[in-house]
Amino acid sequence: MLEQVRKRAEADARTYGYFLHPDPEFLNDLLEGLKRNEERYGYPSCPCRLASGVFEYDRDIICPCDYRDPDVQEFGSCYCALYMRKDLYEGKTPIRSIPERRPPEKMARAYATSAEAPSGKAPTPTAPSTAVVAAKETTQVKKKIWYCKQCGYVCFREDPPYVCPICKAKREMFAELTLRTDAQG
Amino acid sequence: MLEQVRKRAEADARTYGYFLHPDPEFLNDLLEGLKRNEERYGYPSCPCRLASGVFEYDRDIICPCDYRDPDVQEFGSCYCALYMRKDLYEGKTPIRSIPERRPPEKMARAYATSAEAPSGKAPTPTAPSTAVVAAKETTQVKKKIWYCKQCGYVCFREDPPYVCPICKAKREMFAELTLRTDAQG
Amino acid sequence: MLEQVRKRAEADARTYGYFLHPDPEFLNDLLEGLKRNEERYGYPSCPCRLASGVFEYDRDIICPCDYRDPDVQEFGSCYCALYMRKDLYEGKTPIRSIPERRPPEKMARAYATSAEAPSGKAPTPTAPSTAVVAAKETTQVKKKIWYCKQCGYVCFREDPPYVCPICKAKREMFAELTLRTDAQG
Repeated sequence: MLEQVRKRAEADARTYGYFLHPDPEFLNDLLEGLKRNEERYGYPSCPCRLASGVFEYDRDIICPCDYRDPDVQEFGSCYCALYMRKDLYEGKTPIRSIPERRPPEKMARAYATSAEAPSGKAPTPTAPSTAVVAAKETTQVKKKIWYCKQCGYVCFREDPPYVCPICKAKREMFAELTLRTDAQG
Repeated sequence: MLEQVRKRAEADARTYGYFLHPDPEFLNDLLEGLKRNEERYGYPSCPCRLASGVFEYDRDIICPCDYRDPDVQEFGSCYCALYMRKDLYEGKTPIRSIPERRPPEKMARAYATSAEAPSGKAPTPTAPSTAVVAAKETTQVKKKIWYCKQCGYVCFREDPPYVCPICKAKREMFAELTLRTDAQG
Repeated sequence: MLEQVRKRAEADARTYGYFLHPDPEFLNDLLEGLKRNEERYGYPSCPCRLASGVFEYDRDIICPCDYRDPDVQEFGSCYCALYMRKDLYEGKTPIRSIPERRPPEKMARAYATSAEAPSGKAPTPTAPSTAVVAAKETTQVKKKIWYCKQCGYVCFREDPPYVCPICKAKREMFAELTLRTDAQG
């Protein structure tokens, strides 16, 4: 299972031309954190951030998080230092601490839900690890179809990505793609 | 023409951080196989698998096949050993035989069609190399719009991919995107 | 600002396995050109081509332009030599001049608009840098939803890409995705 987590991270790094943290022990700790979160929540949320346990509220911090690509682009590594640029991996550029890019309102929303969850009505379980996901997914978060005005990339999310995964255009290049009636996941 | 096939494979390898098989002769044989299939069927189906000649039934084995990314991730190379990870390319990890990941039902469907084709009604040709494609495409295979619940990637296929090409989430992270009416920008 | 332009180009090169031009001065000139265009037009159009100033007519030459991937695949570098393959970057293959792949009708359309713009009715500004974009975007260019018949990649553009960014299939593999009630291909 840890090997699966590692292989996914390696595959992801390969596609984007990133490197995983060079220190094997530090890297292992991060991968163990991802594995633990996947076991606990059903998805590998960021090992350096507190998850709420509600899929839709944690979606932006599921690894690779929404902030990874702009952070590697700007600072050379992601928040956790799991993914990094070659110059940092090779020690040519020092690894520095990365400011938290996650918007405060997303944190607030996640923490509010997290606090609510144990007291209130429990979600009806449908399958062992995806119960919470299924119960909450369609209700609280409004998703839209976005497209990149530069390259045309289409995605279905709450907000557009910070960086287009295809052409690297900035978030401002995304616009909503309006279809006549409504999308539902 | 062989050079085009090679360049496409090289471009594909570059994007995903893969390498093509290091042995020039073995590589050439695979590329020749792709070229032959492209000439015969109109699409470069896998040189190591038997194609049916019906586009939609062979779609999952058109190179790069649907199984390449999970196979490279798990075993270090694709079924043919055309695409591989750096450690295998450099001989640091031995190249091993890869189990066939293609589901038996897809094979059965393709072979059934393949056997049918010459005896029964021939598809009406519309253009030299895409005749069969056009004739069969819309009829037998039901495609859906899928999105990755993790990163929002949208695709239109029969089944979701095994691995999200954008964030590497597993197939289970894909859900169907249901749209009510017609598209407009 | 120049550093932002550089970082975006570097990120883009990393994802596709490309390299930026090895000569630091030549590279700087190209990046300065991109920066200048971004300041002038609101988007980083190609530093080696004449832009019209109308977003939709320049869209295909916004860097990375529509022609980069087929050009790197065929010739080893893009039109400007900003992006290149490793063998050219390392000087193993000489850098050659690349024929202009942009279709004459797109040039004609852009130049016609460019000449019109100052004389005729000015677009109503809505926001500082995106005014022209907003005013022209939905009117003159008809966009469609396209999907790659090979891998299912979906995009929303005037024409399909020359090369599928996900599976590298050729433009001919793209078809229009018409949405009626339920999706059908």
